[in-house]
Amino acid sequence: MCEARTAVIVSAGTELTEGIIQDTHVRFLASELTALGFAVLRGVQLPDDAALFRDELARASRDACLVIVTGGLGPTTDDLSREIIAEAAGTALVFHPEAWEALLARFTGRKVSDTNRKQAMAPQGFPLIANPNGTAPGFHGMVGSALVVALPGPPNELRPMFSRSVVPLLRERFGGPGEEDILWGTALMVPESNLEEGLRKCMRGGVTWGTRVDEDRIVFSLRGGSAADREGLLRDLTSTLDAARIRQGETRPALLLTEALLHAHTTLVTAESCTGGLIGKYMTDLAGSSRVFWGGNVVYSDEAKVRLLGLNPRALQEHGAVSEHTARAMAEGALAMSAADAGVAVTGIAGPDGGSHEKPVGTVWIAVALRGGDCQARLFTFSGSRDMIRRRTAVAAMLFAEARVLGREFLDSRAKW
Amino acid sequence: MCEARTAVIVSAGTELTEGIIQDTHVRFLASELTALGFAVLRGVQLPDDAALFRDELARASRDACLVIVTGGLGPTTDDLSREIIAEAAGTALVFHPEAWEALLARFTGRKVSDTNRKQAMAPQGFPLIANPNGTAPGFHGMVGSALVVALPGPPNELRPMFSRSVVPLLRERFGGPGEEDILWGTALMVPESNLEEGLRKCMRGGVTWGTRVDEDRIVFSLRGGSAADREGLLRDLTSTLDAARIRQGETRPALLLTEALLHAHTTLVTAESCTGGLIGKYMTDLAGSSRVFWGGNVVYSDEAKVRLLGLNPRALQEHGAVSEHTARAMAEGALAMSAADAGVAVTGIAGPDGGSHEKPVGTVWIAVALRGGDCQARLFTFSGSRDMIRRRTAVAAMLFAEARVLGREFLDSRAKW
Repeated sequence: MCEARTAVIVSAGTELTEGIIQDTHVRFLASELTALGFAVLRGVQLPDDAALFRDELARASRDACLVIVTGGLGPTTDDLSREIIAEAAGTALVFHPEAWEALLARFTGRKVSDTNRKQAMAPQGFPLIANPNGTAPGFHGMVGSALVVALPGPPNELRPMFSRSVVPLLRERFGGPGEEDILWGTALMVPESNLEEGLRKCMRGGVTWGTRVDEDRIVFSLRGGSAADREGLLRDLTSTLDAARIRQGETRPALLLTEALLHAHTTLVTAESCTGGLIGKYMTDLAGSSRVFWGGNVVYSDEAKVRLLGLNPRALQEHGAVSEHTARAMAEGALAMSAADAGVAVTGIAGPDGGSHEKPVGTVWIAVALRGGDCQARLFTFSGSRDMIRRRTAVAAMLFAEARVLGREFLDSRAKW
Repeated sequence: MCEARTAVIVSAGTELTEGIIQDTHVRFLASELTALGFAVLRGVQLPDDAALFRDELARASRDACLVIVTGGLGPTTDDLSREIIAEAAGTALVFHPEAWEALLARFTGRKVSDTNRKQAMAPQGFPLIANPNGTAPGFHGMVGSALVVALPGPPNELRPMFSRSVVPLLRERFGGPGEEDILWGTALMVPESNLEEGLRKCMRGGVTWGTRVDEDRIVFSLRGGSAADREGLLRDLTSTLDAARIRQGETRPALLLTEALLHAHTTLVTAESCTGGLIGKYMTDLAGSSRVFWGGNVVYSDEAKVRLLGLNPRALQEHGAVSEHTARAMAEGALAMSAADAGVAVTGIAGPDGGSHEKPVGTVWIAVALRGGDCQARLFTFSGSRDMIRRRTAVAAMLFAEARVLGREFLDSRAKW
């Protein structure tokens, strides 16, 4: 048995390598194994091909201490996992009468095909792993110095088998999860390269990091070093990049705004032009959003701005749809038309067309009005595709609204994003 | 160059092998490559680790004629693809001033970090692949006898780059079926397993298929057999699954509705409850949507339904927010409040909470009202997560509106989705 906790995950099935179905096992198992302290060296999708399977199994069992094979345990001829694993272990397949009985019990009243007998077989000396939700049991045993665990492909069979049977087995064989702690953080409205530069500048005590870019945020993890080192790095990063942009833990803009609204016992109304409903979509992604999200207006046309929000057509004409005046009038109009306590409005040029020298694509005005309070507006200049400009606008609007609802000043927006 | 069309797909990123995010590139690329006549020998997810990357690239370029590397082209130190591919090709990295100019143009007025310079570099002799949606161009060139193609990780950058630049490159280098030998189709509101079953049932003359599941549709390709076989299969599939659900070519619900609105010289107003703005978001994803999309109301709370759409509070109370009466009143109210010609309204229970025995999670009423015409409503029962129910609701609403705007009857909706 090798010392380090290293693992390779192999998903077998031609439907994976022809792109017919999406492999989800690598993600599930990688997440579980990482939590157990394993380093996953790779995930692999293979077609049902004996030579490729044999080659990959040989390589994986040399490279890693643990190899998890998913799929290929069905009754048909292209289900190869049993045969290839037995061959690699230098043993024969043996029939397990108790597995056969269990299989027959599942088929009560239905004709069992002879090909199903294969599903009661496993490499000699490999204990079975019970499958409460399907016909094929799993099994585990050594191939060279690696523990090989074979599990069936259907996720509703594999996942409970992994949790109930494989996790205890791995704890027993490989010991508990590593003590290495992780500190999570979220970066908002920070380009990936700026985040990296900030992390590098604040680096200390052998702390390393990983990042994951989502459509509305970047989640990062700090690991290694001491807890004090990781916390110090996060503190330095926050003062370098602004507390509005760096948050401890994993969060998202809509969640931050929702928490602020709950905290302030406030409800929100939106007035969206260029985002077309995206802010409302983000807010209502969260279950239970009805406690804080009153509703909104998608005022894509000028006529909608006039009819739904009561904007003055002359003023709209004079200042233009993308202007501070219009953004403020939208936020105040949305408040006036609703029973909500806070109104956020966005109007901008998402492109690819519609830009001009004075108002290039990416020019966005955002305004937040509070009932019985003030109305503030900010100009942003976003770069990127139409999709990116719209997402950045929605994120900025949610963070601006969060700050105003909490009575905080919002960061200077003159920078480019 | 090897003869057979064999390929290996490598996705780089520690977030993949730690199970933080789901790799979707292997599936997308495997489907596309299969359609181009390639046998995909394996898909691999690797952590950002130089030794593992080097090893896998060496092995892949021995095993296959084509190696596609995704990810690892960002500006940060754990982005290794450029360095490892250059090393494997035995060349140095060279700076591309034109790529740097393009990158600077994207950053207009913003501070470009020095780490970004790395994104304008590629292995010597490797032509760049333009990236219209991001900062990192791709590149391609030979490593041993394999063509290696490197593409950035974000799907909205990778997918158009693959379609526009890599497909023509592969056709030129490897030959294979031309675009005229593939028949593309789009399945809407069809569960993946039903589509698969339908395809299998209608199969003829050695036609094979690949599918790609997107958030609002499944795109499928038919290849092999004769043109008549492929067209016959599509015809049979359409009559099996309904012409509203199977469309020739690659399309999407918002595009179909936009085309119908343009055709009928009609504008649209939305009234969204459970979707919270998602229909507006989908409609305005398309540039130029202002020609057909007038605007909308996000009426998440009952109060918003009353104040923004003029619903009668007593009737709303009596029938409930999720009812045929409310859906119709919402569509008609949206029309009355706007200058648009067609109104689409959705109200439903997206879950996970809020369901009851009579109205379980997934119960959705959709209504479409035409100015000077009738108002029709349909009951849908969607299954899945909150996110899936919301997406399915938005898709059904757009297709229902398309049918009504074109004066067609809409499919029976009583089935489960």
